[in-house]
Amino acid sequence: MKKKEILSKGRQDLLNAFGKRMKTLRNQKGRKFSQEKLGEASGLHRNYISDAERGTRNVSLVAILKIINGLDSSISEFFAVGFDNIDTLNLYDTFSVE
Amino acid sequence: MKKKEILSKGRQDLLNAFGKRMKTLRNQKGRKFSQEKLGEASGLHRNYISDAERGTRNVSLVAILKIINGLDSSISEFFAVGFDNIDTLNLYDTFSVE
Repeated sequence: MKKKEILSKGRQDLLNAFGKRMKTLRNQKGRKFSQEKLGEASGLHRNYISDAERGTRNVSLVAILKIINGLDSSISEFFAVGFDNIDTLNLYDTFSVE
Repeated sequence: MKKKEILSKGRQDLLNAFGKRMKTLRNQKGRKFSQEKLGEASGLHRNYISDAERGTRNVSLVAILKIINGLDSSISEFFAVGFDNIDTLNLYDTFSVE
């Protein structure tokens, strides 16, 4: 039987906040700036971009900066908004169910 | 023969900036707030803390927030300072030598 990892609320909050911020900044660059275009601009595969926006990928620091570059943003600008309501008390638990 | 990865300057700039910011905020919490103490406060092993401070680890988003929690900081505060001089043009290359 395949194990499925269930993310704790805090982890999912964080990944969702990251994806939402990505999508907001991508949309600010215009309707034609698709996930595929962001992939090209950041040097990452469009599936990676899609996963990150949906909050299903725990992105690394280097990938984060690639995405931010692709969005023509900066680290300070990217993280200034949207990350203050994460349930950090619940960041540490992970669960597995079969 | 063992392969050794040489990080591009941009990647190393980024990991160094992260480690430096960690260390600055850790030191602001007092001389007794060691890497080991930060490890306990963030739920990460002290070796992980040591690697991250030395810029030898490409930390993930979830680990980043654990560290920031351990420092009693916030994502927006952590990333507001120290990340603006990274050589992003050179972020994409990796080299391997034998």
